[in-house]
Amino acid sequence: MNTKKKISVCFTADQFEKYSDGISTVVVIDLLRATSVISTAFIEGVKSIIPVRSLDEALQYKEKEGYIVAAERNAEPIEGFDYGNSPFHYINANVAGKTLVLTTTNGTKAINNAKDHKVITASYINIEAVAHHLIEEHNHVILLCSGWKGVFNLEDPIFAGSLATLLLESDKYESSCDSLFASIQLLKNSGNNLFDFLSDSSHRRRLKSLNMEDDTRFCLKPPVNSDIIPILKGNKLVKL
Amino acid sequence: MNTKKKISVCFTADQFEKYSDGISTVVVIDLLRATSVISTAFIEGVKSIIPVRSLDEALQYKEKEGYIVAAERNAEPIEGFDYGNSPFHYINANVAGKTLVLTTTNGTKAINNAKDHKVITASYINIEAVAHHLIEEHNHVILLCSGWKGVFNLEDPIFAGSLATLLLESDKYESSCDSLFASIQLLKNSGNNLFDFLSDSSHRRRLKSLNMEDDTRFCLKPPVNSDIIPILKGNKLVKL
Repeated sequence: MNTKKKISVCFTADQFEKYSDGISTVVVIDLLRATSVISTAFIEGVKSIIPVRSLDEALQYKEKEGYIVAAERNAEPIEGFDYGNSPFHYINANVAGKTLVLTTTNGTKAINNAKDHKVITASYINIEAVAHHLIEEHNHVILLCSGWKGVFNLEDPIFAGSLATLLLESDKYESSCDSLFASIQLLKNSGNNLFDFLSDSSHRRRLKSLNMEDDTRFCLKPPVNSDIIPILKGNKLVKL
Repeated sequence: MNTKKKISVCFTADQFEKYSDGISTVVVIDLLRATSVISTAFIEGVKSIIPVRSLDEALQYKEKEGYIVAAERNAEPIEGFDYGNSPFHYINANVAGKTLVLTTTNGTKAINNAKDHKVITASYINIEAVAHHLIEEHNHVILLCSGWKGVFNLEDPIFAGSLATLLLESDKYESSCDSLFASIQLLKNSGNNLFDFLSDSSHRRRLKSLNMEDDTRFCLKPPVNSDIIPILKGNKLVKL
């Protein structure tokens, strides 16, 4: 009897309904930068994170005790918000014990689209912990790439390829999904230098033009390794 | 002044609205097998092809003089239809001068989704003619992969990579699209043996299980080279 579980890769948040099955564990990926920010904020002691779709929804929390609000649109921070979508905004920033309310262009949308499933978030900061958890859990997995405004981006599938490789090596998973095959091919082509491989990618160019290259380096090759797995409970991401 | 025109690649028929701009020339790709069948039918002398969405719509033409009807769903032919989605159904099959009414799982949907643009169809059978035409025309280009029921497939992006390579070599085109970059990477990895590279792809497996490997070989490396460019005029594909 084949007891291997399936892995599939969905390339954009908008396409999630095509993959949704009500039972798989969904891993949301927005490598540059929402899910890297989420990992970083938890490392820095944030208690929970509320991903919201709109700026207005986020602003409702602005004056509340114990909340901090963060927003990003089109890769840029938004006036009136305490924080943005850079991991560096959270490091040594006195955020411990706070609830972070976060709205970003793509990542928070992906989280919300998948909320009828078990949802966890992943980045290179917590990839090992996430792989370990999924292998232990042994449920079907959908790797949900956030994409960019409904279209394919390069960095999320490459990360999906990294995570899928760890799962497939465990011998507890299999895949028949062309998008997973493509993700692994792209990862392979990136060799040992993801930063250079992505140099022509649309989002790298976007962040470069905004002088956010340090963010990119941090997210692609983080100096930290976290065992925290953010999981969606109700409307909040908390530590698993 | 930069007068280069843009090329983008859309991975599924359903996502076309994200790429639609009202001005680009759209090249519909359903390599296995609708756009290969369309090329083949024109070579065999079909006068025009009406791509329709539903089986019912196709059946309305069944008894009409001068029409032949063809249908495919889930890679299989459909009872009650004269023809299916195999190029071999049209070769030496006395179809000259007829109008072919065709409905397939993915390709005819892609054609219909793009019909507010100039739409042409491409396969390895007419890739050179299509590239030549696009280079001469020098308009923005959207390479619209049909995908499989709304999800990414492997063979259409690889063909998009082949066609995009010809356009980029002309020096009249440029691209900043991550999906085009990924398509070219996948093409590169397929080396000189697309048939083997696709051996694990979902649609190859599907056709293999239905004993349609000859169709796959034909579409990936056709024995013919056609200068016919099918173009949508009203509700019909005709020769450009």
